Amino acid sequence: MEVAGEATPGSGGRLRPRRTGAHRRDARIPQLPWKQPCNRYPIVELLSADEVEAIHRASLQVLERVGINIHHPEGLELFRRAGAVVDAESRRVRIGRDIVEAALATVPASVTLGTRNPERSIVVGGDHLCFTTVLGPPYCSDLARGRRPGALADYCDFVRLAQYFNVVHLNGGSPVEPQDVAIPVRHLEAAHAMLVLSDKVPYVFCHSRQRIHDVLEMIAIARGLTLDELRDAPSTYSIINVNSPLQYDFPMAGGIIEMARFGQPTLITPFTLAGASAPVRMGGALAVQNAEALCGIVLSQLARPGAPVVYGSAATGVDMRSGAPDYGSPDFAKAIQVSAQLARRYRMPSRMSVMTSSTAPDVQAALQSQMCLFAAVSGGGNLIMHAAGWLEGGLCASFEKFVIDVEMLQNLVSYLDPLRIDEETLSLDEIAEVGPGGHFFAAPSTMATYETAFYQSFLYDLRNYGSWVEAGSRDATRRAHDLYQKALREYEPPPMETDARARLDEFLARRKAEGGAPLE
Amino acid sequence: MEVAGEATPGSGGRLRPRRTGAHRRDARIPQLPWKQPCNRYPIVELLSADEVEAIHRASLQVLERVGINIHHPEGLELFRRAGAVVDAESRRVRIGRDIVEAALATVPASVTLGTRNPERSIVVGGDHLCFTTVLGPPYCSDLARGRRPGALADYCDFVRLAQYFNVVHLNGGSPVEPQDVAIPVRHLEAAHAMLVLSDKVPYVFCHSRQRIHDVLEMIAIARGLTLDELRDAPSTYSIINVNSPLQYDFPMAGGIIEMARFGQPTLITPFTLAGASAPVRMGGALAVQNAEALCGIVLSQLARPGAPVVYGSAATGVDMRSGAPDYGSPDFAKAIQVSAQLARRYRMPSRMSVMTSSTAPDVQAALQSQMCLFAAVSGGGNLIMHAAGWLEGGLCASFEKFVIDVEMLQNLVSYLDPLRIDEETLSLDEIAEVGPGGHFFAAPSTMATYETAFYQSFLYDLRNYGSWVEAGSRDATRRAHDLYQKALREYEPPPMETDARARLDEFLARRKAEGGAPLE
Repeated sequence: MEVAGEATPGSGGRLRPRRTGAHRRDARIPQLPWKQPCNRYPIVELLSADEVEAIHRASLQVLERVGINIHHPEGLELFRRAGAVVDAESRRVRIGRDIVEAALATVPASVTLGTRNPERSIVVGGDHLCFTTVLGPPYCSDLARGRRPGALADYCDFVRLAQYFNVVHLNGGSPVEPQDVAIPVRHLEAAHAMLVLSDKVPYVFCHSRQRIHDVLEMIAIARGLTLDELRDAPSTYSIINVNSPLQYDFPMAGGIIEMARFGQPTLITPFTLAGASAPVRMGGALAVQNAEALCGIVLSQLARPGAPVVYGSAATGVDMRSGAPDYGSPDFAKAIQVSAQLARRYRMPSRMSVMTSSTAPDVQAALQSQMCLFAAVSGGGNLIMHAAGWLEGGLCASFEKFVIDVEMLQNLVSYLDPLRIDEETLSLDEIAEVGPGGHFFAAPSTMATYETAFYQSFLYDLRNYGSWVEAGSRDATRRAHDLYQKALREYEPPPMETDARARLDEFLARRKAEGGAPLE
Repeated sequence: MEVAGEATPGSGGRLRPRRTGAHRRDARIPQLPWKQPCNRYPIVELLSADEVEAIHRASLQVLERVGINIHHPEGLELFRRAGAVVDAESRRVRIGRDIVEAALATVPASVTLGTRNPERSIVVGGDHLCFTTVLGPPYCSDLARGRRPGALADYCDFVRLAQYFNVVHLNGGSPVEPQDVAIPVRHLEAAHAMLVLSDKVPYVFCHSRQRIHDVLEMIAIARGLTLDELRDAPSTYSIINVNSPLQYDFPMAGGIIEMARFGQPTLITPFTLAGASAPVRMGGALAVQNAEALCGIVLSQLARPGAPVVYGSAATGVDMRSGAPDYGSPDFAKAIQVSAQLARRYRMPSRMSVMTSSTAPDVQAALQSQMCLFAAVSGGGNLIMHAAGWLEGGLCASFEKFVIDVEMLQNLVSYLDPLRIDEETLSLDEIAEVGPGGHFFAAPSTMATYETAFYQSFLYDLRNYGSWVEAGSRDATRRAHDLYQKALREYEPPPMETDARARLDEFLARRKAEGGAPLE
């Protein structure tokens, strides 16, 4: 396995970085320091409070009268015991509004995710923002090697980039599927690599009970905790995609229950595609989304009252020419902002996405991704998934797009840093001293602060046309290609306690020897 | 001249479009209908009311104590008569706050610009938004022919694109400089072409008194008005760039006075570059901007109380590596939003810009432009300049960027179309009928509305990877190249009364014979 040679147990209980040498003396890629951003600007509320209530009431009616199918016996049993009307044969559960209200009362307003590095803690909720990598594409691409099925080497490189760039706050599960690893052991290899290569919050897929347990145990080991101690130490997260309309399949319902019992948050994300899995009119699509989300949120609280859980949204329209979900469209942006309003209505964190349908890391990909980002952030979203590397509606992870997205995220984070307006910044003395027709190049405040006064991009080229041509006429996507390779050269693996690393290696070896965990 | 053969006077007092024939039967580029958008969403206020007042007070102090140099005798005289302290030798004017307050009281909150086509009227102010093309680049480029000095043929093609795309609401002066036309007659040829090829609001450059008069007279002819009647019929607009810090040169001060007397709005736009022509700290840069803007606004009201005038901003930081203005940066975005707040403080319309430093129509250009656009719109800006075609910090107009920007603008406009949440859109009956596990493809509301339910892009490709490769693996910039050429094929010149056209042609011929107007 590729990671094995990455770092070896050293003296003093710390691992030494593998890469050292001449290139260290090169100028490193300038980037913002590690810091979780907050959005203290006023939030754009797309709908009136009455309109939000109308969606809420409509979804309660859907839960009470139409109901939702839960293809999971324990899930059905939890709802039955809570007083819901359960039809065992159709697996239909009809959920009264009192059950919903009781569950909403125990949902935490935010959750703090910890890792072995205390500085990497992330708050999900309130006015906190955080960004994850893309999650789940079977393919990956870069300009040099083209589009190809994901391999563990690619997976590791994406994890390294996620670790390297400070504006990426959490690992997004498999940034690309390591398809060269056999399925029964893939979750073990992937989790091991993620925990060794990164000290940022890891992800766990809700594929099966055994897989969840395996990965949670590895996460506990990396933090120096027992599996039991993990129950009170949120350390990871998982997406629950609802099988819209109005159905939870076995792995997703089971995932909510398992994760809640281990005190780890799930992001309940209905896949309501207006005109396909939901009504074509966005009002109805959001009513279905909200009913489905509430159902999953209730299930988490029935499994363990007070379990952290996040309101998710991926509602959008169908492109009527291709039949594909129209990610990154204006309709998607509006659904994102309404979903954030609904999450605030329930005093819980929200999860949005940065998505595009584009097949290339081009201007379409950039514009669609940034539209999602602005909608999510100005709408008050908290956890922004797929914020680095997503292409092709989620089928491909692009190395260039990863770097382009990081630049986009950095610009946004810098925008969120409020202007300071006070006597000092208003600079009246300096204005008087320079006077009409003068210049401020040599003014004391310029000399003192010019290096840090403004946001400094690492991808954008601000040179004039002549200099740009002289430097090879490389457009931003081509520069992103060079930058991702430079970032990989500069990457350093985070330290890990020798004991934890040994236990992690041992766990991997043992579970692989046992044959891993086939999908249920 | 290229325009001469464009359309010839026909029978019935209307001109026939030149282009007819087989290509008309091809599918036309789908686009949003002509309509001026409004922004009815909540506005993002970056600063508190106290902070806005602090900038206001600081700029009043600058006007009173430091003063501004006005290199225009009549301008100085107007200020002197209003009670300002004028130093004739240094041309310095110190403006008391009473003069400022009196002038602000007569500034109109909005202005409606009319053209010969009543449907093309544009409101500047309130919650109305409008977008113009790029203005003023000496160069233009497209993928096939590369970068080149602008010529009249290019100028005409950009005017045709501005006329063709509904989301472009006003002509932005010279979308590229027609450098192949001699300077003394350039304004005549350019205005003639713009008025013949487009019935959208035209632009007039404030280069000199004679040139302003020439172009205003041509605009009056196109509307069927006398020059005198134009005084009460706002029909055009012009940018006034302040020679920062704290200086108005002769053409700019003169332009404010002339335009105000003709009842035509100027966009007072200080060029405050933090760290160069303004303090490095954005608070001080905005104080200088606001002082300069207020000075120009006051001058417009002294020339003619009640004259329409617009608060403009182009404040940004200097890129410390290249020394270039950092257009499209987070600092620029914040300055845009504060400027819109200041304009609202003065109950007047605001002017912002969509800008980028990128030399190529690439992801940098897209991301920076969209950052400006979102800042301007979410901040409540009214007139968005350079919104189609701008590249290279304004040195180059790109045909591909024009099309990319139009797609970006359409997405934004569609986002601004509010979601309707009511009994019909909530679709409860349909949700109940389809039920868990069903689909909405064949639902009545889907069948009835699927063609119009969602925004339809003309540039974005939503097909899967295989289909995209089969179609030639063309990225969005390459597709934009084909689309600008298709738009030019589909373009139809707008009708113009035969009499107006004849008078316009006659005016052009006469003034050219007279030698035009050399720059003052």
